[in-house]
Amino acid sequence: MGAQLVSLDLGGTQIRTARLDEHLNLLQRYDTLTLAEQGLDTTIDRIKAAIMQVLPQDGAPIAGIGVSAPGALNPQTGVLVAPPNLRGWHNVPIGDILREAFGVPVYCGNDANVAALAEVARGAARGFRHVIYITVSTGIGSGIIYDGRLLLGREGLAAEAGHMPLVVDGGRVSTLEKEAAGPALARRARSRLEAGESSALREMAGGDLSRIDARMIGQAAHAGDALAREIVAYGGFCVGLGIVSLLHIFNPDVVVIGGGVSNIGDLLFTPMWETVKRYTLDEAYWRDLRIERAQLGGDVSIVGAGALVLTHGGQADVTQVIHILND
Amino acid sequence: MGAQLVSLDLGGTQIRTARLDEHLNLLQRYDTLTLAEQGLDTTIDRIKAAIMQVLPQDGAPIAGIGVSAPGALNPQTGVLVAPPNLRGWHNVPIGDILREAFGVPVYCGNDANVAALAEVARGAARGFRHVIYITVSTGIGSGIIYDGRLLLGREGLAAEAGHMPLVVDGGRVSTLEKEAAGPALARRARSRLEAGESSALREMAGGDLSRIDARMIGQAAHAGDALAREIVAYGGFCVGLGIVSLLHIFNPDVVVIGGGVSNIGDLLFTPMWETVKRYTLDEAYWRDLRIERAQLGGDVSIVGAGALVLTHGGQADVTQVIHILND
Repeated sequence: MGAQLVSLDLGGTQIRTARLDEHLNLLQRYDTLTLAEQGLDTTIDRIKAAIMQVLPQDGAPIAGIGVSAPGALNPQTGVLVAPPNLRGWHNVPIGDILREAFGVPVYCGNDANVAALAEVARGAARGFRHVIYITVSTGIGSGIIYDGRLLLGREGLAAEAGHMPLVVDGGRVSTLEKEAAGPALARRARSRLEAGESSALREMAGGDLSRIDARMIGQAAHAGDALAREIVAYGGFCVGLGIVSLLHIFNPDVVVIGGGVSNIGDLLFTPMWETVKRYTLDEAYWRDLRIERAQLGGDVSIVGAGALVLTHGGQADVTQVIHILND
Repeated sequence: MGAQLVSLDLGGTQIRTARLDEHLNLLQRYDTLTLAEQGLDTTIDRIKAAIMQVLPQDGAPIAGIGVSAPGALNPQTGVLVAPPNLRGWHNVPIGDILREAFGVPVYCGNDANVAALAEVARGAARGFRHVIYITVSTGIGSGIIYDGRLLLGREGLAAEAGHMPLVVDGGRVSTLEKEAAGPALARRARSRLEAGESSALREMAGGDLSRIDARMIGQAAHAGDALAREIVAYGGFCVGLGIVSLLHIFNPDVVVIGGGVSNIGDLLFTPMWETVKRYTLDEAYWRDLRIERAQLGGDVSIVGAGALVLTHGGQADVTQVIHILND
């Protein structure tokens, strides 16, 4: 048996841990509640206990621990700056804490970066060297694999494509995320309903427009509702423009789209592709391009955190690690 | 004496060649006309002759030839796709042609990419590993150094930041280049003068508004003209938004701004900086950031083409090459 590794997916609600083999197959998993409201120390104890649960029972060594966490973090130092949904966490050196507790290397990654690695390692972008991963959910995050390596930047703050500015509506500065993430789609639907437009969404929301979310809009769009379709198409257009920027900047092989909003499917992807074709400088940017839906679903962070260990925090070429795996 | 190398700066008007030492110091240079109107074969003969002019007279070997050329080109194959200002040039394999003629390695680079290398090697970004170079001129080009290496992408089409979509206004999609390059500034000035606004530009243009260009706008702005200042400030705002995108994507050390429009100076850079500070997610993106004016001027392509040779087309770490140079 080759090296084993441990993954930690740290979320606001759940702590998930797993032990994987060096092919990133799951050997064991454990889920528990984060209980962030009980304070930082409690959550850290729960994290350590959750890791203990998946360590090899025979005492075999592990190669390292990979950590996927939300929000800004410094991948070099393993400090979580201010993870959303983890109240009271500010500049927590989770890397050092786990390194000290378990005596193994610890690699930390932002959840979107980790997902990008995972999709290259075992998902929709398997084996490609130039990959853009975009997640469209309550926010818009991204992870970028450039020439097989995770793009981090000087302090690990890179690959935040959701915060690219777009100037809209007579000079207002907005961003890709503010225009096209789930809450933006919901807000747009609500404001048009409040202005009196008719739509199946009004009935679906049972008269309470605050209940409208991107999932409901997706359902209405699939049922043929014109307003919902228009809003989904605008989301696809905006994400498409974001992709246009990223194609001109990175000239990648593959763009992978994940996150809840991507489940809307073709109604989102068709206008996205049309926008890509229309607004790129030359068809060379999209002729051989793939735009794929993310494949890994709920396990993406666990698999990606394992890939973080195998690639030493994304700094080794993930496609070479895979090459070794496939041999 | 260490290795010598040859640089070729291929422009629509002039062919410039030079021989450099391994510190990128100029040993000899030669300029001649491109005469593209006399056809491809003539120009290629003129290129070869211009290279002959700067080869070592003692027959000493050269390490390679670096080529800086405008427009899209494939740096892996050395094929110039369709260089602007070189009519009749389509898919010219200049890399192969020179390799065959001179029997040495040939490395080709887009002029903005070459300039980025040059500014890291000997200019405003000397020694930095994460660098964005933006040239604001008749177009907006860019070159990106990521972790010491030139960012090229799958087919060498990367780092075209001028084509990032920036404005979405009632159905109109515009790009950074279309909003903020020299011709865009001139067009905006003309259209406001045609609408009847008063400005010193009207007199400077001698009544012929078609004579207005970015340089004239810069002069008027420096003289205190309100309209010209507003137009320059809008240019700075747009370039600033482009920088905001690139900061979120790359988290770089330095942004270097070159090109004729950058000579306007503070009237452009002040609104640029204000925009950067206002629209980034967190001050961590700009707290330690430098935004510098390009330093290399007219020799930038010659120096950068030499750096292309030293870095094997930008694929070796340029800051390590410099480290060697400084020893």
